[in-house]
This record gives sequence, C-alpha cells and structure tokens, in this order.
Amino acid sequence: MREKLKVFIENKHVNNFILAVIIYNAIALGLLTYPSICQYIGKFLHQTCFACVIIFTIEMAIKLYVYGKNFFKDGWNNFDFILVAISWVPTGGAFSSFRAFRVLRALRALRLIVRLRRLRIIVQAIIESIPNVAWACLLLVLIYYIFAIMGTTMYAESFPEYYGSIGKTMFTLFQIMTLDDWGSEFARPMMEIYPSSWLFYLSFILTSSFIVLNVIVGVIVNAIGEISDRDKSEQHTSDIEIELEKLKKQIAVVENLLRKN
Amino acid sequence: MREKLKVFIENKHVNNFILAVIIYNAIALGLLTYPSICQYIGKFLHQTCFACVIIFTIEMAIKLYVYGKNFFKDGWNNFDFILVAISWVPTGGAFSSFRAFRVLRALRALRLIVRLRRLRIIVQAIIESIPNVAWACLLLVLIYYIFAIMGTTMYAESFPEYYGSIGKTMFTLFQIMTLDDWGSEFARPMMEIYPSSWLFYLSFILTSSFIVLNVIVGVIVNAIGEISDRDKSEQHTSDIEIELEKLKKQIAVVENLLRKN
Amino acid sequence: MREKLKVFIENKHVNNFILAVIIYNAIALGLLTYPSICQYIGKFLHQTCFACVIIFTIEMAIKLYVYGKNFFKDGWNNFDFILVAISWVPTGGAFSSFRAFRVLRALRALRLIVRLRRLRIIVQAIIESIPNVAWACLLLVLIYYIFAIMGTTMYAESFPEYYGSIGKTMFTLFQIMTLDDWGSEFARPMMEIYPSSWLFYLSFILTSSFIVLNVIVGVIVNAIGEISDRDKSEQHTSDIEIELEKLKKQIAVVENLLRKN
Amino acid sequence: MREKLKVFIENKHVNNFILAVIIYNAIALGLLTYPSICQYIGKFLHQTCFACVIIFTIEMAIKLYVYGKNFFKDGWNNFDFILVAISWVPTGGAFSSFRAFRVLRALRALRLIVRLRRLRIIVQAIIESIPNVAWACLLLVLIYYIFAIMGTTMYAESFPEYYGSIGKTMFTLFQIMTLDDWGSEFARPMMEIYPSSWLFYLSFILTSSFIVLNVIVGVIVNAIGEISDRDKSEQHTSDIEIELEKLKKQIAVVENLLRKN
Repeated sequence: MREKLKVFIENKHVNNFILAVIIYNAIALGLLTYPSICQYIGKFLHQTCFACVIIFTIEMAIKLYVYGKNFFKDGWNNFDFILVAISWVPTGGAFSSFRAFRVLRALRALRLIVRLRRLRIIVQAIIESIPNVAWACLLLVLIYYIFAIMGTTMYAESFPEYYGSIGKTMFTLFQIMTLDDWGSEFARPMMEIYPSSWLFYLSFILTSSFIVLNVIVGVIVNAIGEISDRDKSEQHTSDIEIELEKLKKQIAVVENLLRKN
Repeated sequence: MREKLKVFIENKHVNNFILAVIIYNAIALGLLTYPSICQYIGKFLHQTCFACVIIFTIEMAIKLYVYGKNFFKDGWNNFDFILVAISWVPTGGAFSSFRAFRVLRALRALRLIVRLRRLRIIVQAIIESIPNVAWACLLLVLIYYIFAIMGTTMYAESFPEYYGSIGKTMFTLFQIMTLDDWGSEFARPMMEIYPSSWLFYLSFILTSSFIVLNVIVGVIVNAIGEISDRDKSEQHTSDIEIELEKLKKQIAVVENLLRKN
Repeated sequence: MREKLKVFIENKHVNNFILAVIIYNAIALGLLTYPSICQYIGKFLHQTCFACVIIFTIEMAIKLYVYGKNFFKDGWNNFDFILVAISWVPTGGAFSSFRAFRVLRALRALRLIVRLRRLRIIVQAIIESIPNVAWACLLLVLIYYIFAIMGTTMYAESFPEYYGSIGKTMFTLFQIMTLDDWGSEFARPMMEIYPSSWLFYLSFILTSSFIVLNVIVGVIVNAIGEISDRDKSEQHTSDIEIELEKLKKQIAVVENLLRKN
Repeated sequence: MREKLKVFIENKHVNNFILAVIIYNAIALGLLTYPSICQYIGKFLHQTCFACVIIFTIEMAIKLYVYGKNFFKDGWNNFDFILVAISWVPTGGAFSSFRAFRVLRALRALRLIVRLRRLRIIVQAIIESIPNVAWACLLLVLIYYIFAIMGTTMYAESFPEYYGSIGKTMFTLFQIMTLDDWGSEFARPMMEIYPSSWLFYLSFILTSSFIVLNVIVGVIVNAIGEISDRDKSEQHTSDIEIELEKLKKQIAVVENLLRKN
C-alpha cells in the first residue's frame, strides 16, 4: 500500500496536476479581490479554493504517510507543511473580523517555490547570502539606533509626527535612507527651526549609504569569490600536475636504467 | 539580374544611403511633433516620410528577391522585415482616430540597431542576459503577486484608489519598489488608519530590493564569469604544457640513448 | 595586584557582563525617549544609566592601571576611551539647555563595535576603503563647488531659498544628486524663468552620477582585487614549483650517476 | 634666459605657489556670492581675483615661451590654456548682462585637476571609460528618442506641459528614468485620462533601467578585466617557465654526457 502511494505521489503527472492546482488557486485568490467578478462567480471561486485546500491536505497526508519522519528532515518539506497548515486557519464566521487571517491565504502561492527547482535554487542562494551580510546589517541597525536616539532627543518636541519616539524616528530614518522626499519633507522645514540640522541629515545619509554600499559590494564579491573557487577546483592546472607525474616516472625509468648499468 | 541586384544591395554606398534615410526619417518624425514647424514645412515632412517608407519597401523587396528564403533565417532580418511592414499600417483617413497606429511609426528608428553592428552586439548581449535572470524575475513577480493579494485584501476598502484591485495594487507596489514617494504618499497616510501597516511596506521594500539586488549581482557575476572563461581558453598555461611536451621528448631521447648502450 | 586585576578584566564573564551593560544602556536610552514610559520608570532608568556610566568608568580605570601606556597604542582603545570620557559631559543643571550635550550619550552604544570582533572587522574594512576613494571624493567635492559657484551666480536672485549662497546651493545640489524631487521642486519652476537651466541640471546629474559610479566601481574592483591577490598567494601553482624542484633533484641524481660512470 | 625660466617654472615652490593661488581664487569666488561679505571686502576680493588672473596669465606666457610648440602636444596643457584664456572673457561693463560670461570664472577651479596628478589620473580613467560605454549610451539615446516621439504623439494634446514637444518629452522621460516623482506627478494623473498609459511608463522604466544596468555592468566588468589583464602579465607563471628552462638545460647536460660515453 505504502509503495503504491509512493509511486502515485512521485508520479510526474500527479505533480504537474498539483502544480496546476497551486497556480489555479493563486489566480482565483487574485480574481476574488475584484468585486465585479465576485458578484458573478464569487461563490464558484470560493468553493474551488476550498477544494484546492482539500487537495493540498490530501497530498500532504499521503506524503506524511509515505515518508514518515524522514519527511521533516528536509527544510523545504517543513516549509511546505506550514504553508498547508496555514490554509486551515479559520477566516469566516466568528473570525471574519481578523483581516490578518484572510491575508495568510495568499501565502499558499509560495508553494510554487517549493515545487519549482530553479526558484528553490535562487531562494536558497539568497538565504545562504544572508549570513555573509548579517554582521554588516547589525552594524547598520546599530548606526540606525544611535541616529534614532539622537534624532528623537533633539527634534521630538518640534516635529512629534516624524521624531516623536524611537519607532517613529526609525521609520523616518528608513524613509530618508531610501532618499524618498527627504529634502522637501524633512530636511528643509527642519532647517528653518534648527539651521544646523543639515549636518544630521548629511551624516546619516552618507554613513548609511556607505554601509549599504559595503553590504552590496560584499554580496557581489562573495558571488565572484565563489565562482573563482569553483574555477580553481576545476582548473586544468591539475593537468600540468598529471604531466609532471608522467615526467617523474620517465626520469625514474632513466635512473633505473643507469643504476642497472 | 539577381547577381547584379545583390552587388547593388550589398554596396557600401547604398547601405550608407539607407542609413541616412533612416536617420532623416527619425529626425523628420521628431520635427513633426512641433506644431510651429508643422505649419511651415509639415506637408514637406509628411511627403518625404512617405518617400522614406517607399525606399525602405523597395530595399526590402530587393533583399527578399536576392536572398529568398535564406533572408528569414537570420533573426535580425525578421525584425527588420516587421519594422518595414509596420510602416504600412494605415494611420490617416478612417484610422486617424487610432492614435496607437500613428505611434508605431516611431519604431522605424529601431532599424538603426539592425544596421549598426555595435548596437546589434549590445542588444544581443542584453537579450542573451535575459534567460540568466528570468527565474529571478519570475520569483520577483511571484512575491509581487502575493504582496498584491495581501495588500488588496487588507487595504482595498480604505484606499480604493491605490489598492482597489490586484492591478492597481501591483502598480502601487511597482511605484513603492522604485522608492517613489512611498513614504509621504502611501505609508504615512495609511499608518494613521492601520498603525501596523509599516510592517507591510518595510517587508515589501526589503524583500523586493534584496531580490532585485540578486538579479543585478547575477548579471554582474555572469558578465565577469564570461570574461574569466574567455581568459582561461586563451591562458598561456598551454605554453607550459607545450614546454612539458618538449621536456618529455628530451627525456625520451636520453632513455633511448641509455637503452642503446 | 596588577596581575590579579588583569586576569579579572580579561575574564570572559566580566567581558560579557560589560557587554550586557552596554546593551542595557542603549535600550534604556531608547526607552527614555518615550514620555509615557518616562512617567513611570523614568527615574529608575536615569539612575541605572548613571550606574552604567560608573561601571564603564571603573572598567576603563582598571584597564588604564593594568595596561599603562600600552593601552593607547591601539586605535580602538583610544576610541573606547573617548566614548567613556564623553559620558561625563554635563547634561543637567546649567547645561540642560545644550541639547547637543545630551545627544552625545547615544554614542555610548558605539562601544558595541569596540567589543564585537566581527563589527570591528567590518568597520576597519570600511575605514581602509576610504583612502582608495578619497581622491575621487575630492574630485566630487571640486565639481560640486564649481557647480555651486555657477548656480549661485546665476540663480541667487530669482531663487534665494535654494541658491541664495554657496552653502544653500551645495545643499540643494546634494539633494539633486540624491535625485530627490529634483524635477518638480527645482528644475521645472526654474525652467519657467530660465528656459535653458535644464542644461545646468542635466550636466550636474550626469557628471555627479558618473563620478559616484566611478567611486562605487572603485570600491568593488578594490574588494575583488584583494580577493585575487589573496588567491594568488595561496595558489597551488606553488605545488607545481615543489614538483619541479623534485624533478630537478631526480635529474641531478641521474647526472651524478652518469658522471660516476 | 629660456633655461633659467624653465628652471623657475618647474621649481617646486613656484608650483606650490600657483596651486595656492588657484585655491585662493576658488575660495574668493565662493565668498563673492555672499552679499554680506561682498559689502565689507567685496572690492578687495575682486581685486585679488584679478591679480590671480594676471598671475595665471604670466605663468601661461612663460610656459608658452619655454616649451614652444611642444606645450600644445599634451592634452592637459591645451585644457589648461583654455581655462586661462576663458578668464579674459569680459564680464563687466557692456557685458555685465551676460550672466553666462560671469559663470565661466568658476571653471578656473578646474585648474586644480590639471595640477594634482591623482585627480588627473581619475579624470583620465573616467574619460577612458567613456568609449566603452559610448555605444550603450547611443542605444539609450535612441530608445529615449523613440519613446519621446511616441509620448509626444500620444499625450501632447492632454499634457502639453510635460509632453508638448520632443524636447519637453525627453526632459520628462529623463525625470522618469531618475524615478523622481514619476508615479504621483506623471503616471497617476495620466492614467485617469488614458487608462492604459501605465504600459508606456512600465515599458520605459524597465527598458531604460535595463540598459543603464548594462552600462554600469560594462564599466565594472571593464575595470575588473583590466585588473586581470595586469595580473596576467605579472603572473608568476613565468617563474614556472624559467624553472622549466633550467630543467631543459639540466637534461641537455645529461644527454651530452650520455653521447660522450
């Protein structure tokens, strides 16, 4: 029985069917956001979406039965399991006021990443690049925090909307770091009250963009470093070593011939 | 006859003349957008533009006659053919209300790319780099779509203009990704109604810029990888191998001498 | 006595305790910016912050006693010393109106960088990359200055707010370089008075972004150059040299055998 | 006489004096833009600036006398000559209404680049990198032009301010490419009249940023390519070749010994 199910669940056509269900589900969730479409086929879409969840759950149950504990040894399977489990978070009835619950449905589309090998590789590459930049990000957060304390201490009274608390200031600083309207919205009105506040903005923008530049350079250099590492291990310098090995043997033959003489 | 036409169409001066016609046509189309200029020489410009189309068509007809089916074997020729064919889309009379038809005329200037080898190389390089980033772009679109469903589900009621439907939300998210006015136009007014919506903006900006960064890094790393591949094939490590080959022969001579003794 | 203190100050647990105090101090300074929190535990936070300063000072005093003059030979120690010294800048009483003094407290959080090796490495890398881009930055400043003189000379009368003096113009140019609202806020209103001013904006944006691009490329190329330098020194080409050395000895043996004959 | 002047003009102290004069002149031109400073020492500044021009002219005259025609063989000298010549463009009296003439004074500060070797190297590197990206820039201009014709043809009637003529449209497109306010200022108001105009904006932004990305990647890859070229010529692979040469000689000795036997 277990063997039969394993063959069934690993069958190419079954997998493609599940893939199609995932894509249909994603499109249906998108269509459900159009009120005009909801009026006509809203009920149908809701019902098929529920059918999708049933199919996902059956697939997951079969996989759990077939692979047992081994199923959870792969990180991607765990991720997949969570995505299916989230589908059962109640959204209607008494819970319909929790908008956040309904939002979780959209996450089901992430199952595509689990299913498509190429997407999985890219996501894995992105995740693996995180530790390399994690310390630089910690530095960025620290610089952020120090500037946030400074900004709040100095400007909270005059600009409570932007610098009222650490949280507000950090959001404002994030907006400034993305260079969004920093001049006309923040810096210029402030410079009319605190003429030397340009120093605060200038030092923050230069510091943060220099650190971000370092993060980006780090990612690029890492990626190139990996290429050159891969190159080295394949390098045909080893060809030369093989040639040298042959030469050595040839000379050893010559030596033996001489010793015999 | 066919041979004569082939010599004629591949003649350097004829090619330069066609190039000049393309450039004149592009400039004339530009001048036609100035009403003040149109008043004086508008008729002349229109007539010469039509003459350009005639010249292009004759050139294309000769090429088709000379090269026959082989003409369509090159992708650039197909592209060129389509550009000339588009010139005959009707724009005046009954069709003058289809503004989009008149716009297609501007595409004729793209013939310059077909004609100038250096531009063709760059365009080819850009097109060839697309498959390398296609999966990363698919991932980006998927993330986009999930955020769009989330955003529409949560904010459609309060902000119908920006988050009214999946389409509108995706446009808004694109605007946010380009960091254009995201703070003052979208995030701040929304945070007054949904105080925790900063999480939505922050996670979207960080996720999308990280993926975009990966796309850019991918393009750079690919370009550098190609250089290092080219380098390797030229590398004068092969010089060393030639030298080793010579050494081997020398030792073989020594061995033979010894064996004779 | 000095030996005992040295063991004490270099003890792992003591160091972790100091680290915890630094982090607590940073969090407390953040909490102090929330008026609602200040009301309840403001006094407690102020007192513990003062206790933190005492602990930092004692730690610093012990280190000065233990290491003597050698303490100041390390740049990081000097930086640490300054951060602790700044903690004693008066902020209350007669000095409470000097807001800038209170701001300096936030700098204490920078002690984290001194304490965490990984952060120190990143900061050192960033500092070391500065000389490589210093000249390019000088060039950028020079171009800035020339455009600032030009802008002030031309537009000071009509736009005193943006171009009233070299200082104002440089701030405006910085805002334009970050591409923040340059079109709608600066260029378009100005083009109504000075129609050819788009030339000023275009040339400034292109020049400055080209130089900035060169700075970024410089940083990336430097980082990659260092990798390839490190690679070369580790390269197993040296393996080949060792092999060649062995071959030489083998042949020398053959030669000796022949000479004996 | 000529020899004496040559020694004088190439003297280190004389050169440093000229450098100081250039810097003083730049600062004085900056100070002259402050009306409050002009009131007090404006006359003094004007007179010393004129003295600077005299000094520059004398220096240039000596150089022309000393080096003769050879002076113009170096591109930098030509540039320097033009900068000094520009200083004599009349700005006062009848010409005082030509604001542009007064602006040219600021260019004198560029003499710093001619004087400082490091700045000259950077500028030379930037200039040398231009041909590598020139074709990509031509492609960008072509794409620009085509989009400009399209935009003007489609939107000139409804948005004469932004799309009234090719020139206006190109400026608008440049602003869109820098992602400055493109959403709220251009795209959203237009989408209310032409609902499908998002296609125009999206395709332009994606196309132009992809080409710009290619230009940047080109600059980076070129810079890295140059490094790897330099590396190769220095590479100690040549060390291996020297070693192989020695081995060859050793074996030749062995061969000779054998032949003698």
